[in-house]
Amino acid sequence: MSTLTGTLALPQAAQLIDKHRPALETAVAALRRRTFHEQFPENPKAYPETAQAEGQAAFEAQLGKPFTRLRQKSDGQLTAHEKSPYTGQPLGIGYPTLSSPEAYVAAAREAFAAWRKTSPEARCALLMEALERLKADFFELAFATQHTTGQGFMMAFQASGPHAADRATEALALAWHEQTAVPEHLVWDKPMGKFNIKLDKYYRIVPKGISLAIACSTFPTWNSVPGIFASLATGNPVIIKPHPTVVYPLALVAARLQEVFTENSLPAEIVLLAPDTPDAPITKQLAEHPEVKLIDYTGGNAFGDYIESLPGKITFTEKAGINSVIIDSTTDLQAMVNNLAFSISLYSGQMCTRPQNFFIPKNGIKAGDQQVSFDEVADAFAKAVQGLSQHPKAGPAVCGALQNAESVRNRLSEVAAKAQKVWLESTPIANPEFPEAQTAGPLVVQMSVENLKDFAHEWFGPIAILIPTESTAHSVELAQSLARQHGAISCAAYTTDPQTMNHIADAMAEAATPVSFNLLGQIYVNQNSGFSDFHVTGGNPAGNATFTDTSFVTKRFNFVGLRIQN
Amino acid sequence: MSTLTGTLALPQAAQLIDKHRPALETAVAALRRRTFHEQFPENPKAYPETAQAEGQAAFEAQLGKPFTRLRQKSDGQLTAHEKSPYTGQPLGIGYPTLSSPEAYVAAAREAFAAWRKTSPEARCALLMEALERLKADFFELAFATQHTTGQGFMMAFQASGPHAADRATEALALAWHEQTAVPEHLVWDKPMGKFNIKLDKYYRIVPKGISLAIACSTFPTWNSVPGIFASLATGNPVIIKPHPTVVYPLALVAARLQEVFTENSLPAEIVLLAPDTPDAPITKQLAEHPEVKLIDYTGGNAFGDYIESLPGKITFTEKAGINSVIIDSTTDLQAMVNNLAFSISLYSGQMCTRPQNFFIPKNGIKAGDQQVSFDEVADAFAKAVQGLSQHPKAGPAVCGALQNAESVRNRLSEVAAKAQKVWLESTPIANPEFPEAQTAGPLVVQMSVENLKDFAHEWFGPIAILIPTESTAHSVELAQSLARQHGAISCAAYTTDPQTMNHIADAMAEAATPVSFNLLGQIYVNQNSGFSDFHVTGGNPAGNATFTDTSFVTKRFNFVGLRIQN
Repeated sequence: MSTLTGTLALPQAAQLIDKHRPALETAVAALRRRTFHEQFPENPKAYPETAQAEGQAAFEAQLGKPFTRLRQKSDGQLTAHEKSPYTGQPLGIGYPTLSSPEAYVAAAREAFAAWRKTSPEARCALLMEALERLKADFFELAFATQHTTGQGFMMAFQASGPHAADRATEALALAWHEQTAVPEHLVWDKPMGKFNIKLDKYYRIVPKGISLAIACSTFPTWNSVPGIFASLATGNPVIIKPHPTVVYPLALVAARLQEVFTENSLPAEIVLLAPDTPDAPITKQLAEHPEVKLIDYTGGNAFGDYIESLPGKITFTEKAGINSVIIDSTTDLQAMVNNLAFSISLYSGQMCTRPQNFFIPKNGIKAGDQQVSFDEVADAFAKAVQGLSQHPKAGPAVCGALQNAESVRNRLSEVAAKAQKVWLESTPIANPEFPEAQTAGPLVVQMSVENLKDFAHEWFGPIAILIPTESTAHSVELAQSLARQHGAISCAAYTTDPQTMNHIADAMAEAATPVSFNLLGQIYVNQNSGFSDFHVTGGNPAGNATFTDTSFVTKRFNFVGLRIQN
Repeated sequence: MSTLTGTLALPQAAQLIDKHRPALETAVAALRRRTFHEQFPENPKAYPETAQAEGQAAFEAQLGKPFTRLRQKSDGQLTAHEKSPYTGQPLGIGYPTLSSPEAYVAAAREAFAAWRKTSPEARCALLMEALERLKADFFELAFATQHTTGQGFMMAFQASGPHAADRATEALALAWHEQTAVPEHLVWDKPMGKFNIKLDKYYRIVPKGISLAIACSTFPTWNSVPGIFASLATGNPVIIKPHPTVVYPLALVAARLQEVFTENSLPAEIVLLAPDTPDAPITKQLAEHPEVKLIDYTGGNAFGDYIESLPGKITFTEKAGINSVIIDSTTDLQAMVNNLAFSISLYSGQMCTRPQNFFIPKNGIKAGDQQVSFDEVADAFAKAVQGLSQHPKAGPAVCGALQNAESVRNRLSEVAAKAQKVWLESTPIANPEFPEAQTAGPLVVQMSVENLKDFAHEWFGPIAILIPTESTAHSVELAQSLARQHGAISCAAYTTDPQTMNHIADAMAEAATPVSFNLLGQIYVNQNSGFSDFHVTGGNPAGNATFTDTSFVTKRFNFVGLRIQN
């Protein structure tokens, strides 16, 4: 009687699996229910009272020094091109490096041997342990994110910390569920009439290979940890290539992972931080390396299309979309424009979910029991945007600062120049705490439908384009066609008519674009919620992957069956 | 309070869902357990006593006539190039056609409108209904398969009927499970301290688009129904492009589907049979059509690589692999060679799972308590092959006939010419029932490891290449490297040493190749079993998809969320 053994024995695996099984199973159940669920609370008050001060102290102590918390092998150091959009000062942090893309691949290959033999349950438990420990870094992570991306502090805390950890937990939960859906071993017993045929069958999870995570400059952890954790959980080592100007947040994540790996007698290099500089980028060399089989990518379309076109790779992309707002009618004009003003101002529009094109019938809309003209809607919206963004306290908190000020300013000028009418000019946002902050308040313009080529384009930044249409049906047609041709990640719609609502839902769903209807309260189209909302559908040109559907995890491994006639 | 309705009301949907839910849920549970399970019995005796005679009568009545059971629109007819490998006679069956690839796409597009709005549960139930009805055609399907592919009757019955239907049920079960894993509607209720934010959330299944199934000439239904049913179940209309010489079996499948669709007020064209001829192939035009989003393909590597390279398509391929046998030691030499002789003879080796390269240490192997030389193993194997293939009754039944006799014969000559030694020449197999049958008994040759380029190649047909190696470790190295570079779909290994077994399992699993160890009884490496064995791992160059893992289904649709603040 022969048996197969395929798994590495880790001293603490059993304890870690027991420790984290409840959290993983809770997360699996939450994903099925999709009701409100937080694995990591988004409210800063849920954390120890001293956590924020300690996080700030840790952040300040790190500035200008080498980052020594990574345990990966290295033969050099690189001071990243990180500069605070709030102070204009370089962060001056040095990160360990290896001398070439090939050296990162070699290190990952070496670590792969042990990681692929770690059982799927142990992998998920180790990764959950790393997330739990990352909790202690949430405030440092918030400062690191704020002073690299330009996000406001609260957003930086929530997006990089708990929300990102929730998204990572989704990936872990699905990886746990999918990898344990098939038994490790069973006896197959086929009745053949006079006798039975018996086979011992074993099923192995076979990871695809080395995984590359290409992170972006605006949501370094939120957009990258789902892919990193999905690849790791399914046995693939991960090379993290942070944006050259936003390294620190992902260094914190990698450090916690490496801490847990090495404590459990595993190589640190199961995850590798591979920073580079704008002058000597290494992304393409890594992406094209034949041993790199999986690529997670967040960023612009041109590079994303290149990534998707690489032969022999399985890619998970989030590129840009053109997001529409369809305004047909509303119960409350002021609440509607306030809500949309927030959406356009939040993080100065540097979000892939930010609305851009506002389609409004040229003859106006019904608001409550009044008919309101196009100009009245436009004016109310522009005033709401101005009121929020120029509010001395809310303005800087909501708008934050510009990650790449020069390119945002170029786009602001370009759009203003193309517009028929400027409803609100972009003006700087005074930030009393950070007088040197790079800011730009939202620009609100009007374009005609004849200018299709000008608005059939993503203008990343605080830019709203109001477009008078023939009718709501016409608005829907335009929004659907833009989503189909160029992609869309969100859509906001306002209508009090149930038939119109169904029409919008059908048309946009056909273009694989999620729609948020009639948001008037404190919830915004750019927000989506872990364990409930999918992020990017994968069904239009804005990206080919989803946080977090089953494929996001199952495409990263294969099952291999082994049969023995004993 | 607004609500969304997205689903078409079908008069009998609820009844059909109730009728087929038990079968679908049984199948879901069977896939999780992976023990022996048949949804459709493989034993012909499980079917009505008169079924075989009726099937034969139906087959004979169909010969030389138009196939009128399809309900799809058509503007022409094509007599397919179908010819029995047993009688040499053309089948002479005419199939309805449309005038161009564009016309098929247009018909599919039109049918898509209703199908995408049919609820996922209703789709699965309708498809299960079609499978249940196909049961009545299993014997006709067997004759249709025998006289197009050349399979022996029993294989034609089992592979095209119950085994194919079981594989289709796997796809339906997973489609049922995955599409219902997310609720259709829920109220999301987020506590915000002093108040709660509530959103009505809806989740839609959004199919990818038109699906193309490119079938092969040897297993027309078995290799194609999983993809056809997976695409249909997830809302995608399917154009079936049968092999020009093997149309009839898939016409039977399409006819049952169209019968069920039209009875339920749905367009027949949700599934379309699109036959072509070798002189005027339409496959590339269909595959490259921008509206075709999903492609299932079984066939050769060159065309498969082209299919995988098409931009903007999601592909599911099964191409060719080079399958190895690793012989280290055995308890029973005779049982081993008998088992392998059957594997190489079955359907004259026209199977993607057939073993080809037999790696045997040049110093021989241990068999029971004896040391047996390489030549003794080779001789015993050649004799076993000869004994089986030349057996007057078993020979023709097991070997069947050649689908494409000319190309198989060319390969037999080519391999014989490259060999160091011919252990068994290929000779015709006398078939008393069909004296005109195109046959070729297996060829057993020996090649040296220096001839790597000659055996690093798939030789489709009844061809076994024996290769003396330095040691079992050397055999494993060669088998692993061939699987990695050229793909492999199966591997047979014989060893009585547990350590060697684990070494083989680890090495081949790393190359994403399933291994069957020590098959001595009436089970063979080329066979794999629905609900238990995965077919093709997707992890090496032999193909990028698996019957049937979760991705096989989930890659065919996206979730789109719709939110309403009510």
